[in-house]
Amino acid sequence: MEDFVFQNPTKIIFGKGTERQLGEELAQYKAKVLLHYGSGSIKKSGLYDRVVASLTAAKIEFVELGGVKPNPRLSLVQEGIELCRKEKIGFILAVGGGSVIDSAKAIALGVPYDGDVWDFFEGKVPEKSLPVGTILTIPAAGSESSSATVITKEEGLVKTHVSSPLNYPAFSILNPELCFTLPKYQVGCGAADMFAHLLERYFTITQNVALTDQLLEGAMRTVIEQVPKVLKNVKDYDAWSEVMLSGMVAHNNWLGIGRLPDWGTHAVEHELSALYDVAHGAGLAAVFPAWLTFQLDAETARIARWARKVWGVEESQDIAAAKAGIEAFKEWLTSIGMPISLAQLEVPTDRLEEMAKRATANGPVGMAHPLKQADVLKIIELAK
Amino acid sequence: MEDFVFQNPTKIIFGKGTERQLGEELAQYKAKVLLHYGSGSIKKSGLYDRVVASLTAAKIEFVELGGVKPNPRLSLVQEGIELCRKEKIGFILAVGGGSVIDSAKAIALGVPYDGDVWDFFEGKVPEKSLPVGTILTIPAAGSESSSATVITKEEGLVKTHVSSPLNYPAFSILNPELCFTLPKYQVGCGAADMFAHLLERYFTITQNVALTDQLLEGAMRTVIEQVPKVLKNVKDYDAWSEVMLSGMVAHNNWLGIGRLPDWGTHAVEHELSALYDVAHGAGLAAVFPAWLTFQLDAETARIARWARKVWGVEESQDIAAAKAGIEAFKEWLTSIGMPISLAQLEVPTDRLEEMAKRATANGPVGMAHPLKQADVLKIIELAK
Repeated sequence: MEDFVFQNPTKIIFGKGTERQLGEELAQYKAKVLLHYGSGSIKKSGLYDRVVASLTAAKIEFVELGGVKPNPRLSLVQEGIELCRKEKIGFILAVGGGSVIDSAKAIALGVPYDGDVWDFFEGKVPEKSLPVGTILTIPAAGSESSSATVITKEEGLVKTHVSSPLNYPAFSILNPELCFTLPKYQVGCGAADMFAHLLERYFTITQNVALTDQLLEGAMRTVIEQVPKVLKNVKDYDAWSEVMLSGMVAHNNWLGIGRLPDWGTHAVEHELSALYDVAHGAGLAAVFPAWLTFQLDAETARIARWARKVWGVEESQDIAAAKAGIEAFKEWLTSIGMPISLAQLEVPTDRLEEMAKRATANGPVGMAHPLKQADVLKIIELAK
Repeated sequence: MEDFVFQNPTKIIFGKGTERQLGEELAQYKAKVLLHYGSGSIKKSGLYDRVVASLTAAKIEFVELGGVKPNPRLSLVQEGIELCRKEKIGFILAVGGGSVIDSAKAIALGVPYDGDVWDFFEGKVPEKSLPVGTILTIPAAGSESSSATVITKEEGLVKTHVSSPLNYPAFSILNPELCFTLPKYQVGCGAADMFAHLLERYFTITQNVALTDQLLEGAMRTVIEQVPKVLKNVKDYDAWSEVMLSGMVAHNNWLGIGRLPDWGTHAVEHELSALYDVAHGAGLAAVFPAWLTFQLDAETARIARWARKVWGVEESQDIAAAKAGIEAFKEWLTSIGMPISLAQLEVPTDRLEEMAKRATANGPVGMAHPLKQADVLKIIELAK
């Protein structure tokens, strides 16, 4: 096990109707609020009205900024920063999925900073931020209690992240009922995303990580079992509760303590969504089986363990078990409506070399299993 | 799943030699420190010297209060409170196991309170406390990142607890090397204690808790597998790392979210250790198999699931599987040197009725499976 420091202070408020506690929760910050959201689906669902009612009842002043898109853009972040300064905003409230929350976190970093917020995405360490709260509507990215934000800069289509303890939300409100209106494709993308977060932690090279191995395997089995239930009945509160918690624990790092994660697949996928603006979860579904196939020889024993413990594979030979596990993973992804190839993702194959080059522009990607440009190319070739 | 609010802000600093980071970590509090510890084993092991060196290097003023005993006493807590007021202490540092940490938490609650600190143990809700930091030397109670403190009042031998978010330590330093000097009996008691914390959460009546069921089962399998390794070789750093993390996650409530826990067995055991001053973990080992046997009819299916998932029992009939699971549990407890009966615990059997009466003096105990006086008596009869 590796040495580590862990502290995740996010307050999780979970259950039916919990969005009605928003005003009460926010009141302690005594701040004017930026209400940040996406395309407006929260208006159709009625959530927007309940949020505004809760803010109004608590006499909390707020201004609005909607329009966050999937793969959230730097330009809107910059617009948000300007707005917050002008309006003297002291708290950012994100109502939506991972893109809205990531956009809110980036705005929160930028407001108290004199320079360009993109500096942090290029490696500068942030020292201050505004507090962020969230009402989660899409279980997927885990941003509701993670230390990360991922933003895309339009110029050059660069998609990258900032990890900082400052990015942990002050609170996150999780009400599984808010998932009842999600389209199936978005459910699938969310499931692939949270599963990938578990995989990126699982495929470590750190030895002696018995406890977190067990916890990660249990969380993966839960996602595999529960996601089909919500696809069958989108109003299954109990199954949504499991999926919502799984998405959170997949990325709040409870299950990643003491292990070196990988994140190579995420780095490859970021090029896909930067260049083609595909949904992040779908991109991960298209790439992860290929990453596993690429690692078959180097990581036979670990992939075989995963196949047996997570997919119930009974092959006695490690290599056969590992291959069967990857096949089971692909079948599950297909069953939840996810693409398992670039072709199914409808991504053209004429820029694969460019993607490999872009992904490794700052050196190898993947912490546990570093990938050079040629490795990335092989993986995306395998994913064709 | 039940609605819940979860927030655990404790900073965990884990790894080799991490106690040397103490001064640096404490410096930000700019406070005079109470260094609180137990019988003095930290002096024999050299830990005391390293702690003092780190405090001195960081120019942190401190006063000392040692002498915490297992089942920590109210009188020492009160002495600590007086000392802190006199010395204008602003931070309590606990160096030891659960007893020392619980004592420190109680002192921290008492210092800023005008009345008697025991008020909180009788139900008054605390509103303030001093910050507490810990250096853990015995993986067991999980107090290093829990919201609870358990104290025994000498007058009337009353052992009870306070749960409050104020009780979460500000930081806890976990270095598995510090466990290398633990006597085997203490290792066994610690293992029984952390296993019981997992069981108290596992034997819920809340339905639809798939994720946390899986996580709890994984943590139990880890404890079962790793504790014998440290008993075989007390300097096995890797196995201690797993045991230390398991003890933490068994009680920091990561695995208890959304489920009603039980705590009936703890309530029964508290009478044992209040009256006979037995080690808490040993008391739990003597009582928990009896609690499970008592619940066999009411909870056949859940005990059978536990038997299969945690103990690898292969019986197809639920009742046979459940019984085999309880037997496997007893065998494991025996193998790690724990008593599985009051007789083995060397507790006389002439005050069983009194214990049952005391345990239920304020009404039934056990949240998921409430036990009346007659039920408690049956359980301790089964444990004879």
